[in-house]
Amino acid sequence: MASTYKNRLTVSIFGQSHGAAIGVTLDGIPEGEEIDFDVLNAFLQRRAPGNSPWATPRKEADEPEFLSGLVAQADAASGTTCGAPITAVIKNTNIRPSDYANTSVTPRPGHADYTAFVKTRGHADLSGGGHFSGRLTAPLCIAGGICLQILQRRGISINARIISIGNATENFGEEIERAKQENDSVGGVIECTATGVPAGLGEPMFDGMENRIAQLVFAIPAVKGIEFGAGFSAATLRGSENNDPFAVAGGKVQTTTNHHGGILGGITSGMPIVFRAAIKPTPSITQPQQSVNLTTLTPETLTVNGRHDPCIVPRAVPCFEAAMAIAILDALQTW
Amino acid sequence: MASTYKNRLTVSIFGQSHGAAIGVTLDGIPEGEEIDFDVLNAFLQRRAPGNSPWATPRKEADEPEFLSGLVAQADAASGTTCGAPITAVIKNTNIRPSDYANTSVTPRPGHADYTAFVKTRGHADLSGGGHFSGRLTAPLCIAGGICLQILQRRGISINARIISIGNATENFGEEIERAKQENDSVGGVIECTATGVPAGLGEPMFDGMENRIAQLVFAIPAVKGIEFGAGFSAATLRGSENNDPFAVAGGKVQTTTNHHGGILGGITSGMPIVFRAAIKPTPSITQPQQSVNLTTLTPETLTVNGRHDPCIVPRAVPCFEAAMAIAILDALQTW
Amino acid sequence: MASTYKNRLTVSIFGQSHGAAIGVTLDGIPEGEEIDFDVLNAFLQRRAPGNSPWATPRKEADEPEFLSGLVAQADAASGTTCGAPITAVIKNTNIRPSDYANTSVTPRPGHADYTAFVKTRGHADLSGGGHFSGRLTAPLCIAGGICLQILQRRGISINARIISIGNATENFGEEIERAKQENDSVGGVIECTATGVPAGLGEPMFDGMENRIAQLVFAIPAVKGIEFGAGFSAATLRGSENNDPFAVAGGKVQTTTNHHGGILGGITSGMPIVFRAAIKPTPSITQPQQSVNLTTLTPETLTVNGRHDPCIVPRAVPCFEAAMAIAILDALQTW
Amino acid sequence: MASTYKNRLTVSIFGQSHGAAIGVTLDGIPEGEEIDFDVLNAFLQRRAPGNSPWATPRKEADEPEFLSGLVAQADAASGTTCGAPITAVIKNTNIRPSDYANTSVTPRPGHADYTAFVKTRGHADLSGGGHFSGRLTAPLCIAGGICLQILQRRGISINARIISIGNATENFGEEIERAKQENDSVGGVIECTATGVPAGLGEPMFDGMENRIAQLVFAIPAVKGIEFGAGFSAATLRGSENNDPFAVAGGKVQTTTNHHGGILGGITSGMPIVFRAAIKPTPSITQPQQSVNLTTLTPETLTVNGRHDPCIVPRAVPCFEAAMAIAILDALQTW
Repeated sequence: MASTYKNRLTVSIFGQSHGAAIGVTLDGIPEGEEIDFDVLNAFLQRRAPGNSPWATPRKEADEPEFLSGLVAQADAASGTTCGAPITAVIKNTNIRPSDYANTSVTPRPGHADYTAFVKTRGHADLSGGGHFSGRLTAPLCIAGGICLQILQRRGISINARIISIGNATENFGEEIERAKQENDSVGGVIECTATGVPAGLGEPMFDGMENRIAQLVFAIPAVKGIEFGAGFSAATLRGSENNDPFAVAGGKVQTTTNHHGGILGGITSGMPIVFRAAIKPTPSITQPQQSVNLTTLTPETLTVNGRHDPCIVPRAVPCFEAAMAIAILDALQTW
Repeated sequence: MASTYKNRLTVSIFGQSHGAAIGVTLDGIPEGEEIDFDVLNAFLQRRAPGNSPWATPRKEADEPEFLSGLVAQADAASGTTCGAPITAVIKNTNIRPSDYANTSVTPRPGHADYTAFVKTRGHADLSGGGHFSGRLTAPLCIAGGICLQILQRRGISINARIISIGNATENFGEEIERAKQENDSVGGVIECTATGVPAGLGEPMFDGMENRIAQLVFAIPAVKGIEFGAGFSAATLRGSENNDPFAVAGGKVQTTTNHHGGILGGITSGMPIVFRAAIKPTPSITQPQQSVNLTTLTPETLTVNGRHDPCIVPRAVPCFEAAMAIAILDALQTW
Repeated sequence: MASTYKNRLTVSIFGQSHGAAIGVTLDGIPEGEEIDFDVLNAFLQRRAPGNSPWATPRKEADEPEFLSGLVAQADAASGTTCGAPITAVIKNTNIRPSDYANTSVTPRPGHADYTAFVKTRGHADLSGGGHFSGRLTAPLCIAGGICLQILQRRGISINARIISIGNATENFGEEIERAKQENDSVGGVIECTATGVPAGLGEPMFDGMENRIAQLVFAIPAVKGIEFGAGFSAATLRGSENNDPFAVAGGKVQTTTNHHGGILGGITSGMPIVFRAAIKPTPSITQPQQSVNLTTLTPETLTVNGRHDPCIVPRAVPCFEAAMAIAILDALQTW
Repeated sequence: MASTYKNRLTVSIFGQSHGAAIGVTLDGIPEGEEIDFDVLNAFLQRRAPGNSPWATPRKEADEPEFLSGLVAQADAASGTTCGAPITAVIKNTNIRPSDYANTSVTPRPGHADYTAFVKTRGHADLSGGGHFSGRLTAPLCIAGGICLQILQRRGISINARIISIGNATENFGEEIERAKQENDSVGGVIECTATGVPAGLGEPMFDGMENRIAQLVFAIPAVKGIEFGAGFSAATLRGSENNDPFAVAGGKVQTTTNHHGGILGGITSGMPIVFRAAIKPTPSITQPQQSVNLTTLTPETLTVNGRHDPCIVPRAVPCFEAAMAIAILDALQTW
């Protein structure tokens, strides 16, 4: 199996949920960039369990240890990139593989247990989802958090927020709580916006900004859709409505609306990049579900143990900022 | 600029709308595969202009000429892949660059004219959209059409169809005709399904099937969104509704529903792969639009000439089959 | 099979010796660069057959036709890169596949006939060496010739020259003539030097300048070795002899000797890049040779027909300049 | 900077000589492969300091810790690949960055200090060579050691040996001792052979076996040349001497000689792959050398401190086996 984003930046993510550690190796990052550890940790804490009442009771410190690529400043509060590849790891400390004893032969509906089993001819480490666990978004956020600090200094800001949870577009907590009470889970939609992005980033065809962002966003487990700008609603508009008129403002070319979401022909226009992603409900629910014992090929009713969020959407928010940040910094290392 | 899909298959697309030729170089295709030229041409004809009353009046024969990679059979009705890279070109014959004289300095709203201009510091060949023209989907379809024939022999079928045009979910012709009468254009949604795909294709994280398909689909101009399986509607479901139960049928593991769209954790489950893509309305409309003269940085009212479809959705259908076919054949050359 | 160099520049070479055409698709080339066709053709003529008394009697005009990526200037004497991928083709006109009828089952010693046959399970087009023919260095030279003109404007010059032919270090013509008289062939060594290369190009480890140049140089058929700077003779030196002292000259850091060949740790030092490559004798000789009929697996004595050079070293000289030029322009698009 | 080999296997090497740790992330390795830790450690010990009287006095345990990708067997004596990316790290314990205080502004002749400084605009961590240290061959050997065990089970063996040290082709110890006595260093030539490699591996042009092996071998610091089969001496032979006749032996096609070194047209012939690499003398010598202070741009006489080998050739032997193993396993994951 392969888990490397290979472009101008290379992002190799490794680790299994209940293995020794998870982490990331990142190369191509510009040298001489200061990375503030407090800012990075604060970013990582936004996705860490324990920050919302609905998060999994599994607690992990989730503070990354840098093995390479950063030269620590004297006060140890920050490090400066030295150009060498950056590797950061997070040790797995709160491990309970016994929780997952049954999933290795009886796959959880909606999870990657079955497909990982087939892909690896039964050799996958499926404990806690193994390499397919949502926990692997932590190294993605380390990589993205580093990129975010570099982009910030170049005047680029990225912010994601929840648009909806289930059918609710406000009072999200209630929707999640309701799902939890019913031993169920719920999904949602997140919108992510990057401002300050210069015009001219990206490539035509396969390596456009939409292509890169989509490739990175679908690395976040549970994402089932992505749309840019007006997205699916653009399909219902007339050209006269959807086309964004050009205008000059402050000596710069802009569009007066942004249905195109900051990208035309794969290349940034200088307007904010905007995408929305659909996140499916957490597949791990405590209700009994129909599965199949892969050894005997007989039906089996599965009750998932383990510690799971009724809704991972709140914790997923920074993951999308991370994905967008990697895509933009990657494109900024112009072709 | 770069227009190459680089994975197990390499797909390099070249050409400008009003240049000498457009085409594709394709390497990594298995050797010994017979490619039927009539089948391929029939596939290409589905996207060629002139097949619907709403298509651009620009007529092109659009028959590919193979320069390499295929050894022609005696009757010249088919060729067999010899393992060497395949290059096919389509000569541009019906060229009217004068139609686009004004767009090189005054970008068409909704088009890539502006972003291409910035990207290339003014050097882009913007005539007819240049390298960003929808015409460049012809070489994508050559590559995809070759892949489709190979997949067919492996029991994999791919079919795309229109789901909606504008707000209409039937009588699409009327919706398009209405837009045309009003000097306007209209978009739509296409659904694409692949059946017969074995379980276990794809990779976790960045190189999953959703990632690859998305990377290829966003190479089709005008696509603004993609969703797999239940897609955005999955975000409104409960886990108990969205999870697809496993069952055994005919000695094989299957799911009884397919909200996951044939992909879990980036890897195929053996169920049909299903995605939908949103296509924005053709930006080229004959109504006057607001733009900016890029040389003088002054506002300008633009009236687009040229030959344009009021709706490119019908002609786009095979492009999605092509994108899916490339992604699947690519993944079949297992890692 | 795959024939694409994938880095900052992408170079896809296609074609078979006796197919319709050979050519190259090149993306990532900077836009706005003028390419002088006469200069390019003069460069290509240096490798074209017919320029030396020992070259194959097969004559090909070998003038590339540009299908994309260049906008021709009014006088058609040059074209300017527009940023879109560049594709150039050379039609094969002087084709005699019958000359090679026997090599498809009885491989020529020293050629790729056998390995291509195994690789493609018998499907390779082996006529004239097919995709493995030395003729495929023509598209390499097109790509390299374009890079050379761009590098020239950046103050970088590349020159290759013959160091030895067989055991001769001068009067090369006599050595070649002698081999020809004896129905034999002879190899040689070429040295290639790039001056004006700025310090700081390349990467540590796998993507260093030596790695890139070697990857490109071994794409030239018949190359069996490469060495940089002092090369193999460095292995016989003491550190005190081989180390190049640093000095300041004209306000710039230089080394007073250049045993390192312009590259330290994979990265350019600003000193000339120097490599030498060993070229084996042309395997096609008219003497009877021992081979095996691949269909019957019985020994067979093979007499090679066809039109062949007793020594391809003189025509190979520009190929090395092309390879070096691609590697340097690739690295100049800094990481 | 970038230190990732990106092909079917992805090998990302990270770490600085005097940073927290060095290591490697490796993806694309087949699942279900048992890796014996004792065998791996024995392999790594061959390059570890302390195994020869001439090695640096810096002692490191150099036992890799696996963070991911291996599921340990019950007795902890081996692990089985689970398909997830493999990351292994070696902690740096015996660190003396003060030894290198002066090299950060005054580069050591023959080292990458200067080029790394320019490349990173002064930000490189140059302590002990930083990311350019020969110590980074330890993670290369971890990756290669894993590949070797997998290849062994497929009947492929790889062995490297010293051919010469300085001008000596025997009694290598005396040659090294002499250099050491004279406060000098000495290089050498290593030959590496792989047997049992099936015919048909590799690609034409840029991704041939010679190209891949060369790309990997030049990642080993101090390598200045590589040749395959007859190599540079092939340039002095006639075609009739250099061509390897085909014959049938044991029902298989073979060549009766192996001047081609097991590779024709970039593709393996089934004969042993043989290459030789030239290693320059260790640049770190204790004699005073001429350098330049990069801050003041004034000449400076440098005396290198630190712990260095008078000859790194003996310890480099397994590095070449590692490079060859990565190249072959990579190619075995056929295209």
